[in-house]
Amino acid sequence: MNRPKPLSGFPEFTPEARIVEQFVLDRLRETFELHGFTPIETRAVEPLDTLAKQGEIDKEIYVLSRLHAEPGATTDLGLHFDLTVPFARYVLENAHRLQFPFRRYQIQKVWRGERPQEGRYREFTQADIDIVDTDTLAPHHDVELPLVSLAALERLHVDLGLPPVLMRVNNRRLASGFYLGLGVDDPAEVLRQVDKMDKIGPDQVHDLLISDVGLTESQAKMCVALAEINSADESFVDSVRALGVEHDELEAGLELLATVVRTAGAYVPGRLIADLRIARGLDYYTGTVYETHLVGYESWGSISSGGRYDSLASDGRTSYPGVGLSIGVTRLLAPLFSRGLLRASRPVPTVILIAVEAEETRAEAIAVAEQLRDRGIATEVAPKADKYGRQIRYADRRGIPYVWFGSSIAGEVKDLRSGEQVAADPSKWTPPETDRRPQVIPAIS
Amino acid sequence: MNRPKPLSGFPEFTPEARIVEQFVLDRLRETFELHGFTPIETRAVEPLDTLAKQGEIDKEIYVLSRLHAEPGATTDLGLHFDLTVPFARYVLENAHRLQFPFRRYQIQKVWRGERPQEGRYREFTQADIDIVDTDTLAPHHDVELPLVSLAALERLHVDLGLPPVLMRVNNRRLASGFYLGLGVDDPAEVLRQVDKMDKIGPDQVHDLLISDVGLTESQAKMCVALAEINSADESFVDSVRALGVEHDELEAGLELLATVVRTAGAYVPGRLIADLRIARGLDYYTGTVYETHLVGYESWGSISSGGRYDSLASDGRTSYPGVGLSIGVTRLLAPLFSRGLLRASRPVPTVILIAVEAEETRAEAIAVAEQLRDRGIATEVAPKADKYGRQIRYADRRGIPYVWFGSSIAGEVKDLRSGEQVAADPSKWTPPETDRRPQVIPAIS
Repeated sequence: MNRPKPLSGFPEFTPEARIVEQFVLDRLRETFELHGFTPIETRAVEPLDTLAKQGEIDKEIYVLSRLHAEPGATTDLGLHFDLTVPFARYVLENAHRLQFPFRRYQIQKVWRGERPQEGRYREFTQADIDIVDTDTLAPHHDVELPLVSLAALERLHVDLGLPPVLMRVNNRRLASGFYLGLGVDDPAEVLRQVDKMDKIGPDQVHDLLISDVGLTESQAKMCVALAEINSADESFVDSVRALGVEHDELEAGLELLATVVRTAGAYVPGRLIADLRIARGLDYYTGTVYETHLVGYESWGSISSGGRYDSLASDGRTSYPGVGLSIGVTRLLAPLFSRGLLRASRPVPTVILIAVEAEETRAEAIAVAEQLRDRGIATEVAPKADKYGRQIRYADRRGIPYVWFGSSIAGEVKDLRSGEQVAADPSKWTPPETDRRPQVIPAIS
Repeated sequence: MNRPKPLSGFPEFTPEARIVEQFVLDRLRETFELHGFTPIETRAVEPLDTLAKQGEIDKEIYVLSRLHAEPGATTDLGLHFDLTVPFARYVLENAHRLQFPFRRYQIQKVWRGERPQEGRYREFTQADIDIVDTDTLAPHHDVELPLVSLAALERLHVDLGLPPVLMRVNNRRLASGFYLGLGVDDPAEVLRQVDKMDKIGPDQVHDLLISDVGLTESQAKMCVALAEINSADESFVDSVRALGVEHDELEAGLELLATVVRTAGAYVPGRLIADLRIARGLDYYTGTVYETHLVGYESWGSISSGGRYDSLASDGRTSYPGVGLSIGVTRLLAPLFSRGLLRASRPVPTVILIAVEAEETRAEAIAVAEQLRDRGIATEVAPKADKYGRQIRYADRRGIPYVWFGSSIAGEVKDLRSGEQVAADPSKWTPPETDRRPQVIPAIS
């Protein structure tokens, strides 16, 4: 077999990168659990009729068939393309044994048969949090969700040196109420045009609002003016009020968005702004919407987005409104890895290598290793009895910081970085806390 | 939509079970890392020609096609059915940047289009460890691998209350050497029959060895006698020697197997026996082979097996021998969950609920929650401002052990189990260590 080539769109990481990815996933999990989200995992496949309801992206679904099935026979199963559709199905299937409001997180691979390009993958990992309730979901969860996500992303920044983020938040009730207050019939149509602001600019949006949505000149002007408002504090409320439009939904939206900005300012200052042009394409959002960029890497697109939807699922009798947010783990990490901006300090968990002088002393070396492992120190026994210098080279090539020489009674530990070698007792020797696990080395300016 | 039904062969866990599964995966990962295994993860798909080489199970492969591709057009990609084939491909693809011997662990889902039945799934999680080297791999790794796996399984028993295990180990060199010493031409054919011992019994195997493999009566007797030897200590060596067969490979195998038994006796006493009937069906094993049962649940089949293979992969110039072992995580856990033998003490990570007396005081409740989270205490703010009794019922239904009442200055914490309520300071209150995370509750006799 010749050397196999990577498959486009299916990123695989080196051990150095996978170690960092695990640290990232650990911190996401920890943050979600600190906020009372419970873990679930769903199967990778869903029936096609469950997946295909989302008309927009059914082209991207991978369908399964069995290799030796009748020709053309498929299984009616496809790989899930996000974690929202399977979660909605899970809620309906298990509603009778779940407690509502149900708070869950879910960290899994998803698959899309898209044409691969930078930032678009055919297989990628998402980390989702959602809160779902029966019939109605309290509005304060719209405030809570972005804060949980920001708390998670802030830990990646502070603990692991990833770039900081900026989350831009809007509320569809604010925008819809404003449009209704202006006398516009179809707020959704306006939103779809406003969603293009970043791509085509305010002048073009203004023209489309008149030509395609049928707004008057002054209505279009006001819609664009609203979309141009943003602030890191509550001052956006005054800017909106200054436009002179009144509507109950507008008021409700303003109050919710002001609460988000105020609360975020208290707990994750500088990471969130109200930005009234954020629309998020999908129709099903009905309240808060958010998207998030890495500061300094905005062109990579949103690495975390979501919002409120009034009907995640429905079984005919009960509807399940929710608010959710997804972090694109692969989308966040793969470009950092491929540009060499983030890596682990060593490609192995091992802290110390136990040298083996001759095969006859291997049992002795294993005894030393077991004593260290008992105290949580990742230890490897040299694979080959060999000379002093070769054992050191073996450890050095792997970035293992320490080598143990001698027996369990009269041992010595060498620190390969300082060259220092000291007498050590396997029941007592302990590495500094920073050496216990590989460190994450960011190279981000 | 009516309530969706589960898909046969695709197990999904309740939150209580998923919490336990995560604890299990955490301990496997920790044990593997303590022994210097580095994490990798491979994509879910492989090209069909990579997968189909394993002639035996190509019928079980799920092939991908895109929903809106030309009719009949498939992608030439299939879902991996184990973690060995993708690992072999990963080694070939990345050999130029890996350090050998390469020690890796890999915990992922795999898929097989099999007819589902108890203990057989279409989607399941495996946890694999392998050590692979170039050209030759030192024999002491045959001793090391089962010990790592047993260390992991022993932690599941001691920390989480899973049943203990018994690993049965053999060495193919021992068996082959014995058959060659008897003058048998095709040791592999003998092994294939001996593999049936547990199913059809020694008499039938004896007859098949004569009728199908062409052994003499006395050869067949000796082969069955060898397969009936087992011991928890090194006494099996004398039992084999008493049969009076001599061969270099037999000696090498005896020495390796004796070392495994001796070392396991020192570090995981009572969990491993030499059992000379263990053959493992697959042809590619060439040294140690092992399989593992849960004590008291032997009928569930092997939950961890593996062995040595002299050629995991080859690129024509270099061959990569390895020794590996796989723990069937789903196979181990799903029956324990479905029989109610294992569950988490609560279905949420939450330790304490912050009561909200009126919506106006929600900000105050969030402030208390943030102080507790800062110290690693999983905290949820009540979703609804409500009376004392309802807040308690909310927490109680979820198994949350504590409720916080009052403000951040004058707070009180109620332990719902004892009913005790005490004054508390959010910057100081700490739950007992056993309440910090859900506990695993085994119901195993």
